[in-house]
Amino acid sequence: MDLKQIMKMLGKNARKAAEDAANLGTAIKNKCLEDMANEIEAASKDIEIANQEDLKNGRKLNLSSAMLDRLELTQKRMKAMVEGLKEVAALQDPVGEEIRFWTRPNGLRISKVRVPIGVIGIIFESRPNVTADAASLCFKSGNAVILRGGKEAIETNQAISSVLRRALEKNCVNSDIIQLIQTTDREAVKIMLGMNEHIDLIIPRGGEGLIRAVTEMSKIPVIKHYKGVCHVYIDKMANIEMAKSILINAKVQRPSVCNAAETLLVHQKIAKRILPILDESLRKNGVEIRGCSETIKILPLSKEAIEDDWSEEYLDLVLSVKVVKDIEDAIQHISRYGSAHSDCIVTDDLKAAEIFVKKVDSSAVFHNASTRFNDGFQFGLGAEIGISTDRLHARGPMGLEELNTYKYVVRGEGQVRD
Amino acid sequence: MDLKQIMKMLGKNARKAAEDAANLGTAIKNKCLEDMANEIEAASKDIEIANQEDLKNGRKLNLSSAMLDRLELTQKRMKAMVEGLKEVAALQDPVGEEIRFWTRPNGLRISKVRVPIGVIGIIFESRPNVTADAASLCFKSGNAVILRGGKEAIETNQAISSVLRRALEKNCVNSDIIQLIQTTDREAVKIMLGMNEHIDLIIPRGGEGLIRAVTEMSKIPVIKHYKGVCHVYIDKMANIEMAKSILINAKVQRPSVCNAAETLLVHQKIAKRILPILDESLRKNGVEIRGCSETIKILPLSKEAIEDDWSEEYLDLVLSVKVVKDIEDAIQHISRYGSAHSDCIVTDDLKAAEIFVKKVDSSAVFHNASTRFNDGFQFGLGAEIGISTDRLHARGPMGLEELNTYKYVVRGEGQVRD
Repeated sequence: MDLKQIMKMLGKNARKAAEDAANLGTAIKNKCLEDMANEIEAASKDIEIANQEDLKNGRKLNLSSAMLDRLELTQKRMKAMVEGLKEVAALQDPVGEEIRFWTRPNGLRISKVRVPIGVIGIIFESRPNVTADAASLCFKSGNAVILRGGKEAIETNQAISSVLRRALEKNCVNSDIIQLIQTTDREAVKIMLGMNEHIDLIIPRGGEGLIRAVTEMSKIPVIKHYKGVCHVYIDKMANIEMAKSILINAKVQRPSVCNAAETLLVHQKIAKRILPILDESLRKNGVEIRGCSETIKILPLSKEAIEDDWSEEYLDLVLSVKVVKDIEDAIQHISRYGSAHSDCIVTDDLKAAEIFVKKVDSSAVFHNASTRFNDGFQFGLGAEIGISTDRLHARGPMGLEELNTYKYVVRGEGQVRD
Repeated sequence: MDLKQIMKMLGKNARKAAEDAANLGTAIKNKCLEDMANEIEAASKDIEIANQEDLKNGRKLNLSSAMLDRLELTQKRMKAMVEGLKEVAALQDPVGEEIRFWTRPNGLRISKVRVPIGVIGIIFESRPNVTADAASLCFKSGNAVILRGGKEAIETNQAISSVLRRALEKNCVNSDIIQLIQTTDREAVKIMLGMNEHIDLIIPRGGEGLIRAVTEMSKIPVIKHYKGVCHVYIDKMANIEMAKSILINAKVQRPSVCNAAETLLVHQKIAKRILPILDESLRKNGVEIRGCSETIKILPLSKEAIEDDWSEEYLDLVLSVKVVKDIEDAIQHISRYGSAHSDCIVTDDLKAAEIFVKKVDSSAVFHNASTRFNDGFQFGLGAEIGISTDRLHARGPMGLEELNTYKYVVRGEGQVRD
């Protein structure tokens, strides 16, 4: 069989498996997830050996240390993977939930009911733990999944996915609900992205380059986010201590993630007072400032920002800082340079807060809270498969409900249309 | 300016207009819609003249009589357009509605709030009344719209859209919220479908050919339905009178629309008894039957179906008929040949009904009611912009809520992440 045929068979198997997945009860799904957790634990030696193989190959290929780090399945990460599977088992099953019910004057009873999306394709980079995370979320939400991991993690991904499939088999469940593309041939991704008859949704996980390439090629709807250029805007009526604490948390607590802050906007009326205080704290935390001309006047030791800084996702201890004329100026800056991910206003002025949360059109807008809360766990949705900055189907954290769609079920007693 | 520049300007204007549209209050939107209705009424002579021009050109170009019929704005259609605008004014405004609210243990208050999608592109064929229908629904739901109608209706579409824009201007509202592509150049559609920075969603309205072409070319998400191959399945436990009444309604009441039935499936245990009764009634209504080999045995005067009949959307007084072994056979037939639009089971057996509505994965599944009810008005959603057989964002009738997306608004008192 050539690659096209292999991929087509994979797709057909997935379509059949999706039907089976959609009709599984909650109890058997949870049993499978518990078994997956146990089997991963039991097979940890094998997975470790596979991972060592990937790391060895990676070193031979001179992968960067950051990439090798992401590739490595440490004891801690292995444990987190097992815990993750158990947590997904504990989450509420969205499938079949009645979202809405109403009765029409002619007696028709209309239910809007959650159903799985169908077949979901996940394309990801080097972190092998995504195999278990993504597969378990797709499975619990009643979908079949086709996984395509980075080629540098192929041994580890194969080891993990075969353990997951084994747990399904053990429960007499169609193991094609979880399929991993076994080849590292790049052509496979191209074929995959054209299989709109067999795959209903693509979720790419990785850097902006990967996501843009996937979106460009795909004939299948893609839900994604490109980047997180998140803003903290400190209004003239901000509580200074709160502003400092939120900014430091948003910038410093984990600078490498998408919901970390990249740009600070400060109202001109509070700039002179607050910027030196923030500067001191940022410096203590090792943050480099790139300031606008007004900022430089107040903090003369800082580096000056260039135009590109305003749309840059540093993912590092760097912060661009701009003094804005007023709240409208701040909103316009966010609309122009932001990525519609997570943006925050710090203010004690409720009217200003309401203007900001209304006009800033990001997946999550925060008033007096850190942008770092834009996260499925933090929102109480449970585990998430990613954050969407798209406008259709899902925005913000995508949990189990967002991996479902709905259908209408209409019950009558013989009603016909006039 | 060349066409690319013109289209880009259109897109930029729409993006700006979308911001304005999103922030309009309900009262001013309703005032504008009422004014649109009145202005259309007042300008009916001008619109009629434009429509006569289109009809004259259409006759010169030898358009089919069906096409000329769709193109014609009769008095009745003009009146319906005016009524439609008033009805949209009366619908509830979805923008800003809080879909869900909850508080986290750390005190964060999370609101999931409806917001407009942004800029919506509508691509449609010859019916000029779509101009007013689509524009009003997009406007009321807080979106900007770019309309691209059929070239045979250009004069009428221009007349209607300029009246709608005048009503916005009169109310000091940005009239670029409603833009019509003024050229009939086909290249414009191609450019439009690549403008993913300026347009958030494409909704094509028309025949399968148009929709496939749009989907193939588009870089922008498309919500659509290709066709409606709808089934009525008569179970062995069906009430015969009810089955007859539902089938005739689903097939005959308006055969040219997507939610009309195209295929009848009959349980083998009831086939001999019910098929002659149905046949008599179908004949009286002028319906041609194309039967499977079993059907032909019972109704020897009927034409035999070929394989292609099972996936055919006749949009006419033709019905394919198949005798099935049991309910699973019926479900499999629908899964194989159906279009996931509207499917119905007629049965008094509640258990069978529940199996059917669970396993048949169509946008709307009916138990003891006609497929013709899959419609925004009939569901009580108000006017609709179309029916989706896609799986993402919206399925079934797309009303105002489906022309919205959501964002999260998170309010705190300085919470930061541990």
